[in-house]
Amino acid sequence: MLGSVADIARRLDARVVGDGGVVIERLAGLDGADASSLSFVRDMRQAARWEGGGAGAALISASLLDEKSIELTVDGGRALIVVDDADLSMIELLAQATPETVRPEGIEEGAHIHASAQLGEGLLIAAGASVGAGAAIGDGTVLHAGARVGGDTRIGKGCELFANAVVQDRCTLGDGVILHPGVVIGADGFGYRPAPNDGGIIKIPHAGIVEIGDGVEIGANTCIDRGKFGATRIGAGTKIDNLVQIGHNSEIGRCCIICGTSGLAGSVKLGDGVTLAGDVRVVDGVSIGDGATIGGGAGVMHDVPPGETWLGAPARPARDAKRMFVALEQLPDILRKMKKHLSE
Amino acid sequence: MLGSVADIARRLDARVVGDGGVVIERLAGLDGADASSLSFVRDMRQAARWEGGGAGAALISASLLDEKSIELTVDGGRALIVVDDADLSMIELLAQATPETVRPEGIEEGAHIHASAQLGEGLLIAAGASVGAGAAIGDGTVLHAGARVGGDTRIGKGCELFANAVVQDRCTLGDGVILHPGVVIGADGFGYRPAPNDGGIIKIPHAGIVEIGDGVEIGANTCIDRGKFGATRIGAGTKIDNLVQIGHNSEIGRCCIICGTSGLAGSVKLGDGVTLAGDVRVVDGVSIGDGATIGGGAGVMHDVPPGETWLGAPARPARDAKRMFVALEQLPDILRKMKKHLSE
Amino acid sequence: MLGSVADIARRLDARVVGDGGVVIERLAGLDGADASSLSFVRDMRQAARWEGGGAGAALISASLLDEKSIELTVDGGRALIVVDDADLSMIELLAQATPETVRPEGIEEGAHIHASAQLGEGLLIAAGASVGAGAAIGDGTVLHAGARVGGDTRIGKGCELFANAVVQDRCTLGDGVILHPGVVIGADGFGYRPAPNDGGIIKIPHAGIVEIGDGVEIGANTCIDRGKFGATRIGAGTKIDNLVQIGHNSEIGRCCIICGTSGLAGSVKLGDGVTLAGDVRVVDGVSIGDGATIGGGAGVMHDVPPGETWLGAPARPARDAKRMFVALEQLPDILRKMKKHLSE
Repeated sequence: MLGSVADIARRLDARVVGDGGVVIERLAGLDGADASSLSFVRDMRQAARWEGGGAGAALISASLLDEKSIELTVDGGRALIVVDDADLSMIELLAQATPETVRPEGIEEGAHIHASAQLGEGLLIAAGASVGAGAAIGDGTVLHAGARVGGDTRIGKGCELFANAVVQDRCTLGDGVILHPGVVIGADGFGYRPAPNDGGIIKIPHAGIVEIGDGVEIGANTCIDRGKFGATRIGAGTKIDNLVQIGHNSEIGRCCIICGTSGLAGSVKLGDGVTLAGDVRVVDGVSIGDGATIGGGAGVMHDVPPGETWLGAPARPARDAKRMFVALEQLPDILRKMKKHLSE
Repeated sequence: MLGSVADIARRLDARVVGDGGVVIERLAGLDGADASSLSFVRDMRQAARWEGGGAGAALISASLLDEKSIELTVDGGRALIVVDDADLSMIELLAQATPETVRPEGIEEGAHIHASAQLGEGLLIAAGASVGAGAAIGDGTVLHAGARVGGDTRIGKGCELFANAVVQDRCTLGDGVILHPGVVIGADGFGYRPAPNDGGIIKIPHAGIVEIGDGVEIGANTCIDRGKFGATRIGAGTKIDNLVQIGHNSEIGRCCIICGTSGLAGSVKLGDGVTLAGDVRVVDGVSIGDGATIGGGAGVMHDVPPGETWLGAPARPARDAKRMFVALEQLPDILRKMKKHLSE
Repeated sequence: MLGSVADIARRLDARVVGDGGVVIERLAGLDGADASSLSFVRDMRQAARWEGGGAGAALISASLLDEKSIELTVDGGRALIVVDDADLSMIELLAQATPETVRPEGIEEGAHIHASAQLGEGLLIAAGASVGAGAAIGDGTVLHAGARVGGDTRIGKGCELFANAVVQDRCTLGDGVILHPGVVIGADGFGYRPAPNDGGIIKIPHAGIVEIGDGVEIGANTCIDRGKFGATRIGAGTKIDNLVQIGHNSEIGRCCIICGTSGLAGSVKLGDGVTLAGDVRVVDGVSIGDGATIGGGAGVMHDVPPGETWLGAPARPARDAKRMFVALEQLPDILRKMKKHLSE
């Protein structure tokens, strides 16, 4: 139970419109909300759903309430909690409502830690986790069951490696990095060449590493390969979703967002603040400029200038892509007319 | 060795047409079948392949043999075993021919089980598996090596978690759930928002869980994220293939089939009995109605009504999509004619 | 430090053009190269980048230097090392520059090995790795932390199973196979059929196995399912990238290259020397002939003859696909003209 609307508003230093006595038991999206749910309203579309829905209360940004002059109904034992930024206040409440992760109890018996590893203060390392020779792990980092830190790898402070996440030899993670279960950092890049005289395929050794910046979060079962020379790099603050593939020697800037099941071939460059929606494919060697956005399912085969939005496969600037989608929609009808016209 | 055709027919309570003495040593598809193979014929196309192939025997549904008046050749030491349903009888034989999975021998030394976990009767827990604080596991469930059950998670009866499958904190699995190796249930959803004043990216806490119904089977390395509020839900009897991504707060109905490498963004709703063929992408918030089918490689961007088949990217009703495919096939020729016509 | 250009040339039995005294500290691509970097030049495009770039030295194939009569500048303390094959020489240097993988120290305490397993000579098995009943492992094979070898599985000589790689029961690996972290070999194929009388979905047992040939390398978190009958087969020398799905009873030839996030449904056949670029989808039962190449993002729905290159979704021969791409590019403009023309 989160308390009454009045209680919550007090904790958020916020104003109440309507019935401060409504008792809130859960946070919910507007869809699943009932009389004891606190939801949120951050745009006009959600405002309409508040009107028609059953949420007992909602957070709303003052700017929306004031500037748009929305008339929202708060009678019948409902209430709005007016805050500066409904998103940020909801994040604050979610943080309060999210139970603590169940963590290892210190360095557990059954953790496999090489004698030569350097361990910081306050580490939590679960039974079944493993730390290789020459590795170094910063203060307060957590390794869950089955997590593996390879030889000579350096992990920063306050990181969390969830169950069965793997960081291979010689890679480096900054501070506050989160690896969700099953992540694989630093497997060999996919590089081969034909052997002379039809003698099969030769593996290209991968002498490089992976370098991951501070505050990066990487989703479950995502893979980031080590470089052939030098490093595959993930810039500070970048967030990567589940089941993403990032090829050898790619360089991802700061604060990028890469959504699920996307795949970057080798030596791809992303600037800062780039967004790749889900299931994007980027061919090797392509550069995507700062702040660019690539739509879901796109196949990027050419460099994308900073700030642009590209869509489709092959991807092209949004304006061109939309023109093409419209043309395609009309295509069957136009062709039918065309054939008739040509045959006349 | 499975025995003679006559033996097998007796076990299936079936009738033999042809030589009951043919000795069967293996089950096989019609392609790989030889004189000591038992295969199956379930449609006219397979009947033709029986005629031209080398299988010593085949299961055939009585309905096919009788209603279609097929004349199948069974001379030369070949035989047909006539059953009610060739598929079901083949499943019965496959079950007999499949060796038992090699399971842990009780609760093995080297399994890491928190003292506060509640364990049912007859559990098999391998060395290297791990059960968190406050977890509860039902009777007869099997945890293979490296499987992880998070804190306060509830696993039903008769489940099997294969090697290195992970269920994070507070999630729930029904009875008879199968998680193949490397599955990740309950990682945080991919939710962020820009920090005020260009201060980077803020992680949205995920207070929710994942709820998985009875009899669900989930393929290797598939990921299902926990909800932001409430639960991501997988309905009873649903089957999910390998390397599938299911985003936070998605709700999948009962007895759905989701094929490999598909990706569902957040808050997707699937009704009951929905089929997604391979590599389907569904954008966030979309609903797909009961019994709908989505073709391989489709990108679903709009709600799909119950029972419909949609194809393509962006996906559209099959009839429209096929019209478009046909139009596209003709496009280069028509454009050539067009250009000529316009230039005349 | 790799030594002076003269030293490196001596080790490679190569000729120096320019300043043999240049001291090399690292290998690098032409992009990231500085005065103490050794890079490589293998075509005219790279020759131009050498001219404009800052690499202190480069490997170059004699054939390129001689036959093409390139005039490459080597003044100002730069040097070219002329070798028979710049690629092969670079691989030799990379192999020298790549530190040894940090491996388990013999059979470590905390490895879980069933008493009935047959172990070869010189095995390295990490704490937390696990070997099932009746398994057999050849000489010199390495199991890293959390790797799992299932019951009755046979692993050849000189294999390396990285952290948390899983091979399920009864599968077989040849010699020199590399499984990167999180690989899953031998999970059940995705096979079901509707139960009679609307009774849900029946699982088809998978009696088969996976057979992997000598020298195969499989990328992180890739999944290869076991056959329903018989085997899913991966031919010797084939290389598979990360996050690839290979369905039950598929048969992959020798020395194929399958790039990341590709998905093969069941019973797909690839000949020898087939290349699938990234994110290719192949529907069930399709055959792709020897030496064929499939472009990135393609969806293969029909058999591909040997040696052909197919592109697009649905995939078609490269010549047709390119014609269609060109037509699509022109489509919006042509349609506009068309509509104008038809309305006149």
